[in-house]
Amino acid sequence: MEMNRQDQRLFFDGCDTVELAKKYGTPLYLVSLSSIYEKVKQLKSAFTDRYENTRIAYAAKAFLTKGMVRIIDELDLCLDVVSGGELDCALRAGFPPERIEFNGNNKLPWEIDLAVKSGVGRLIIDGFNELDGIIESAKKHHRTVPVLIRLTPGVSADSHDYIVTGKKDSKFGFPVDSPALYRTIEQAIESEYTDFLGFHFHIGSQLESNEVYLDSLDIVFELLKKLRKERGFVSKELNIGGGFGIRYTEEDDPKPFDYFFTPVMEKIDAFFKEEGMPRPEIVTEPGRSLIGEAGRTLYTVGSIKEIAGLRRYVMIDGGMNDNIRPALYQAKYHVVNASKYDQEPTELSTVSGKICESGDILAKDVLLAPTEPGDILAFYSTGAYGYSMASNYNKIPVPAVVLLYKGKDELMVKRQTLEELHRNDLIPEMISRL
Amino acid sequence: MEMNRQDQRLFFDGCDTVELAKKYGTPLYLVSLSSIYEKVKQLKSAFTDRYENTRIAYAAKAFLTKGMVRIIDELDLCLDVVSGGELDCALRAGFPPERIEFNGNNKLPWEIDLAVKSGVGRLIIDGFNELDGIIESAKKHHRTVPVLIRLTPGVSADSHDYIVTGKKDSKFGFPVDSPALYRTIEQAIESEYTDFLGFHFHIGSQLESNEVYLDSLDIVFELLKKLRKERGFVSKELNIGGGFGIRYTEEDDPKPFDYFFTPVMEKIDAFFKEEGMPRPEIVTEPGRSLIGEAGRTLYTVGSIKEIAGLRRYVMIDGGMNDNIRPALYQAKYHVVNASKYDQEPTELSTVSGKICESGDILAKDVLLAPTEPGDILAFYSTGAYGYSMASNYNKIPVPAVVLLYKGKDELMVKRQTLEELHRNDLIPEMISRL
Repeated sequence: MEMNRQDQRLFFDGCDTVELAKKYGTPLYLVSLSSIYEKVKQLKSAFTDRYENTRIAYAAKAFLTKGMVRIIDELDLCLDVVSGGELDCALRAGFPPERIEFNGNNKLPWEIDLAVKSGVGRLIIDGFNELDGIIESAKKHHRTVPVLIRLTPGVSADSHDYIVTGKKDSKFGFPVDSPALYRTIEQAIESEYTDFLGFHFHIGSQLESNEVYLDSLDIVFELLKKLRKERGFVSKELNIGGGFGIRYTEEDDPKPFDYFFTPVMEKIDAFFKEEGMPRPEIVTEPGRSLIGEAGRTLYTVGSIKEIAGLRRYVMIDGGMNDNIRPALYQAKYHVVNASKYDQEPTELSTVSGKICESGDILAKDVLLAPTEPGDILAFYSTGAYGYSMASNYNKIPVPAVVLLYKGKDELMVKRQTLEELHRNDLIPEMISRL
Repeated sequence: MEMNRQDQRLFFDGCDTVELAKKYGTPLYLVSLSSIYEKVKQLKSAFTDRYENTRIAYAAKAFLTKGMVRIIDELDLCLDVVSGGELDCALRAGFPPERIEFNGNNKLPWEIDLAVKSGVGRLIIDGFNELDGIIESAKKHHRTVPVLIRLTPGVSADSHDYIVTGKKDSKFGFPVDSPALYRTIEQAIESEYTDFLGFHFHIGSQLESNEVYLDSLDIVFELLKKLRKERGFVSKELNIGGGFGIRYTEEDDPKPFDYFFTPVMEKIDAFFKEEGMPRPEIVTEPGRSLIGEAGRTLYTVGSIKEIAGLRRYVMIDGGMNDNIRPALYQAKYHVVNASKYDQEPTELSTVSGKICESGDILAKDVLLAPTEPGDILAFYSTGAYGYSMASNYNKIPVPAVVLLYKGKDELMVKRQTLEELHRNDLIPEMISRL
């Protein structure tokens, strides 16, 4: 978190956040294009610029809008989608399908069909019977589908239980010792409708250690050795997922990208050299680490409730409807009073939303500059899983998203209207007939 | 949970759920009108039919659509809203404003203004400075606004920490010992723009014991005694909130309504008789207890993943996007295989959604009849906080809602389309100019 408070108000990507709040209203999601560029630059310099035959696919589930699709396209990244809805959004925004990778457990028949028909670059087989559906769709559309198989290496990550995905007891992927895996590999190699390229794994989210990556590689390597020996199969691609941690609060000290990539790529290179196999293309799928810190959310302070000797509640005009992460994952955020950015944060405050539920607390016991009704609060690092998980709980519209770049601001997603909240409501005739 | 399995498929309010799944697609929210009627009948017979000068206000936040507004109107209930969006929905569906009560912390100026202008029946003052805004708005619209003041009695309930709202350390209401309370009471009594009727409290949700109600009454009674003595004020209304538990699983054994109302009303009657004061009108605000068990959600089974010796994952076409409660509150649900309702539930299964996140498990280790892809699963008691908290996480559209009544079915909310997911997306010009 930058802590230079020479400005009276908080600026973000060259823009006065208090002016933005006035112009667009609050709650307001902000996305800094400069921050995205910077993160992508860091990632490229630690990975794709440094190692040949490598690729980055942005994990769309963290934050996706048609504008974001265009940004990812301009940056020459690939796009990792996990549903037909994300794929649909990418295609409508004109993203080249051959640069799209389709992940996710329990892909539905229409999703597989849309992916195959539109010619996505990779379909990552996640389920024990998914390949049947892919082959069926490929036949229909006269396609040969490039596929990977997702593995669950059986390694536990050090993150929140909900977002640990690489351990064996997981809804995702194939355990390396499952008969279904070998059946699927055999089928993927044999079918004329699939081009079987290799494997995918994803260990978890917000990782703080590279050890699980390295441990997972051992398991994947064993499989690759076995497959070459028994089947003569040489993998052309290895997708190592994402999960790189970001800074939410000042206590966080996320590792730079090369902390992960240097030992991982060393280990990969060493293995393939030793085995005398060509090193496959290595793909990574960062989401949060590219967009998380690029996002901030602005709120206006309304009621303030000081309970003597207990707590000071500072209430804002948003809440768990626009950011479910504090309630869902006990996530912590850095918050500042953007209107009084030059003042010392001395007031212990609990920032609560306006949802009619006690759990609607966005930041418990944080220090804020002396705060009054009308002040603008800025939550940092809300770019990932804020907007993308927003709900209309309490019939509150989803806030607007504004893109910022070097002092310029432009609307990226219009604020939902009250009318849109019941656009699909019907009044069943049976009610009035009663 | 009814357990007669004479039918091969699950019926709900006289409707074949498997046929409903075919007709409307899945995931699908179902709402049984018969069940709502039955619950309202039970509540009325334990409360409004039994005690004079009483009133029921349905807590809209549990589930609100324009159709639901009409149902509540037909049943002659009042409506408890907690936001401008809920109020807007009620007004657009033609609900009489004088039967609307407006609750919620940190009401925004436009919300207060909409409530005052439209003439809602009660505005429940929740914040230390909220009354100023109400008076200002009342002046503008030449209204006298009937108000209550929300108290936090300082009593802890026995429910999940997130939904306990009556304890003193709460964002809601006024602690009975706070100077702000007495200031607000004085102002509400004195102002010509407000008709101060009395107090409101709400202890928590999914309550299993009546003791917290009774304890809270003691605290409120002390306040009433003090106010009569010091100020000559006699309360005309007392709103005791809701929070009555429902049956989610077979382990739950929720108390009937009279378990709460009989001792509560006895205690209230005794107090006012003893004090020689007229007993105020008593209001209750049930939400979940009227709509929770009236709702079920249907899903289609897709992939099934059996990890030998570990777990059997049965994957459905919905997930935490349409029901966040298992991930958010560790809520448990009763689930059945609706396609094989006559078969014994013998297979230990973990029902997981299709959201790209490990925490997307809707029911862990539940018994299902032998389940195959294509089967329809029915989750019971999803009527409250399912649809109302739905998100578009992973760009998945919000499911449709179908109203059922004695074998008839009718669409209540249309399924969201993929197009609607990015209707508000813009592509900022600054992206293409880069």
